[in-house]
Amino acid sequence: MPTTSEFSARLISQTTFIPPEDVPWEPSPAGGDASNLVEFAGRACYETWDRPNPHTAENDAYVRHILDVGHLSLLEHASAGVYLRGVSRSCAHEIMRHRHFSFSQLSQRYVPAEQSEVVVPDAVAADPEIAELLLHATDVARDAYEELLEAIEARTTGESNSVLRAKQARQAARAVLPNATETRFVMTGNMRSWRHFIGMRAAEHADPEIRRVAVRCLGLLRGVSPEIFDDFTITELRDGSLMATSPYVADI
Amino acid sequence: MPTTSEFSARLISQTTFIPPEDVPWEPSPAGGDASNLVEFAGRACYETWDRPNPHTAENDAYVRHILDVGHLSLLEHASAGVYLRGVSRSCAHEIMRHRHFSFSQLSQRYVPAEQSEVVVPDAVAADPEIAELLLHATDVARDAYEELLEAIEARTTGESNSVLRAKQARQAARAVLPNATETRFVMTGNMRSWRHFIGMRAAEHADPEIRRVAVRCLGLLRGVSPEIFDDFTITELRDGSLMATSPYVADI
Amino acid sequence: MPTTSEFSARLISQTTFIPPEDVPWEPSPAGGDASNLVEFAGRACYETWDRPNPHTAENDAYVRHILDVGHLSLLEHASAGVYLRGVSRSCAHEIMRHRHFSFSQLSQRYVPAEQSEVVVPDAVAADPEIAELLLHATDVARDAYEELLEAIEARTTGESNSVLRAKQARQAARAVLPNATETRFVMTGNMRSWRHFIGMRAAEHADPEIRRVAVRCLGLLRGVSPEIFDDFTITELRDGSLMATSPYVADI
Amino acid sequence: MPTTSEFSARLISQTTFIPPEDVPWEPSPAGGDASNLVEFAGRACYETWDRPNPHTAENDAYVRHILDVGHLSLLEHASAGVYLRGVSRSCAHEIMRHRHFSFSQLSQRYVPAEQSEVVVPDAVAADPEIAELLLHATDVARDAYEELLEAIEARTTGESNSVLRAKQARQAARAVLPNATETRFVMTGNMRSWRHFIGMRAAEHADPEIRRVAVRCLGLLRGVSPEIFDDFTITELRDGSLMATSPYVADI
Repeated sequence: MPTTSEFSARLISQTTFIPPEDVPWEPSPAGGDASNLVEFAGRACYETWDRPNPHTAENDAYVRHILDVGHLSLLEHASAGVYLRGVSRSCAHEIMRHRHFSFSQLSQRYVPAEQSEVVVPDAVAADPEIAELLLHATDVARDAYEELLEAIEARTTGESNSVLRAKQARQAARAVLPNATETRFVMTGNMRSWRHFIGMRAAEHADPEIRRVAVRCLGLLRGVSPEIFDDFTITELRDGSLMATSPYVADI
Repeated sequence: MPTTSEFSARLISQTTFIPPEDVPWEPSPAGGDASNLVEFAGRACYETWDRPNPHTAENDAYVRHILDVGHLSLLEHASAGVYLRGVSRSCAHEIMRHRHFSFSQLSQRYVPAEQSEVVVPDAVAADPEIAELLLHATDVARDAYEELLEAIEARTTGESNSVLRAKQARQAARAVLPNATETRFVMTGNMRSWRHFIGMRAAEHADPEIRRVAVRCLGLLRGVSPEIFDDFTITELRDGSLMATSPYVADI
Repeated sequence: MPTTSEFSARLISQTTFIPPEDVPWEPSPAGGDASNLVEFAGRACYETWDRPNPHTAENDAYVRHILDVGHLSLLEHASAGVYLRGVSRSCAHEIMRHRHFSFSQLSQRYVPAEQSEVVVPDAVAADPEIAELLLHATDVARDAYEELLEAIEARTTGESNSVLRAKQARQAARAVLPNATETRFVMTGNMRSWRHFIGMRAAEHADPEIRRVAVRCLGLLRGVSPEIFDDFTITELRDGSLMATSPYVADI
Repeated sequence: MPTTSEFSARLISQTTFIPPEDVPWEPSPAGGDASNLVEFAGRACYETWDRPNPHTAENDAYVRHILDVGHLSLLEHASAGVYLRGVSRSCAHEIMRHRHFSFSQLSQRYVPAEQSEVVVPDAVAADPEIAELLLHATDVARDAYEELLEAIEARTTGESNSVLRAKQARQAARAVLPNATETRFVMTGNMRSWRHFIGMRAAEHADPEIRRVAVRCLGLLRGVSPEIFDDFTITELRDGSLMATSPYVADI
């Protein structure tokens, strides 16, 4: 029986800011690299190095002002990357429709799925009998995958290159693998893209799995830059799952 | 037992060119809308309306020159869209990583999969016994999907909104649906993106299913604009499947 | 003295929709190609070919619903292109920061500027004395350009390739050409990008010249697709210039 | 007389890699953050954490292999930003056509140009007499700018908001400012975009000013990641300026 997979999200990259010495401005010690870089880029548009406006003199107030006036391109200068594991193939498919991110995903064509796990939706995991139904079905799929692998490799003995033969077998046999099959991938984007992703996918109406991914990423990104993500409020829904919203998220 | 799905690709949109009357240039009657528009945009950069260079006076020669010198942004002014059916979910996932296209895909969350079909890889379809293995497995998956749907809906009677309850059941139950499940989608892109997609995915090393999609799209796009796609040569591989290459496709 | 340039915007391309025959749905005769294509792509996500919801059965109501729920990616399937002339270089610079469009612009490196015109800002044109100031300055700049061309060509006689020598002279001499110098370009984008551009640049706070471009493009695009652009209201400002806004434009 | 401006490029941001502890792989101590992150993302696609191929076991060899096979999306996970000053407006215009970068540029609408400088093309600076021609013309333009500012502000006394009035005057008066006017901006992109930019703009045929920018950025990026940029060779042209090429740059 396939093991069920735990969702995991790790922050693996972030932007380091190197303030140029020959600009008459110092980053706020209270601010992080991402938000100070955003402020630097914003001030570069107006050369307001001396912080003439007292209401935006602090870094967090400056970033909030940027959200207020919608000068969102400034947020593109800082990026972050996460390594996600324990995500279902169907959820990954939905995530990868966000075209402003960069993705590198575990290949089903190159990597055999013998040891892969399945991601059980919360609505299924909540009831042992229903979970049993799902695990049985994915178990059958796994067995079929292995049978197919063997049968296809046996049939294509005409292909002398054994690496190629194995790849051809895998890319055909994976046809029976279920949506629930775990995948893993690196996902990198700038802060504007991350805010858009979280705004859309941490919302109540989103699919529960992608919502969980979005809320977890929000947590990691707040660690990177509280200034850029603190307008989001995380709340618990009736079913115990989490969602997040912000007054700055205008549209889905 | 699920029905197996036939791959289908239909051209559903293309760019119509409206040459401005107050420019001293006429489109070539021999050229199509896409390639004449590309030539117009190219000539607009240099205002060479009078076709001073005899080697590029004809529309097809002009387009070939653009490929030669790599002025590929001109190809972005013309677009085309196709409606694809009979594509497996796993193949669609791979296609949708091409971030310069626009996609609208049949939703597994909103649309029940009872009547959905499966896409059988050629390497499987070639041998009835192997195909039998696959169809049995996808049959089991379909049954499990229906069982799950029912069990989850029965369990969530607390949710009074029946539309929402059905959606919640579908988005959990689809976890057992296989990669082979058919999907359908609209895919729109400009000619530069299409050339890149075909260059990468019609190549020999590509997955057979995505290769079939790419070669078929190439056929449709040649109908739209022979000038922009005639550098590709389609050849048959040993297994009877098709591939396409062009000397202008530098990298994978 | 340089001639002043008239702003001109011509629609040069639009998307033609070819509804597939084997789908049980017909486009609305009242709708245009762009909005019917958008509806087709939307219905393809749910296979609601039979128009089950009476409130969105008409094409214009369907498009309005898409704006309401923010399913904006559907708007990407239809595109339009315009040919713009009589735009100042500084305004073109601002326009070309919109990264979701494709541009092909008249080259200052390849095309001599002897006969180029200047674009006079409305705030300047409104007062003959102020306009005189500007035209005198651009006149001096034009003379300097020609002097520089000649002087640089004379100096680089070491370069035997006369085409290259002329190009080198132009790319250096253009340094004195003013922001007001007219440029011309093709600008192509999908309906989502056009709505974003118009939402930002037809707003009251935008620079008057880019606002004029945006309002004029809105007029052309309404001709292409009233359904997709009719939520915008055009109003006249105190100074007689036009602006446009829509309740669907959430942020600048 | 306007002061001539010195070109300056400062590295202001780069990606820091945080290797996840629960992956059985350690970054190469010899490699930098960017190239180790790229290797991590590549290995995540195949889970070849144990470096099974001795030819790509070293980080620099791994990156070179990625260039060889064209798996360029991996390069998108690492980014860098530069702050550029002493760039002419016309050169900035050309740079900002590269749509995969993020830009934040000094505003001519908001910031008065009284103290702005001019960028003198090398072909002009090389000859004092020619330089004199240019500086005289830009001097006249500056004076005209100040006259226009004053005249327009005097004329629009009806507008009671003095900040708005000044902005309206600046956005009209800037029409006479020359292409040579200095601008400053932040430019951020991932390593794939940077390689593309350098491949196109450090080539011999590029405009001398943008070529200088590209070669200087190449120097900074090599400091960030020799592994990702060491295939480029910098050579001196006959006129003493620099260019760079790489065997991996297939097309312009």
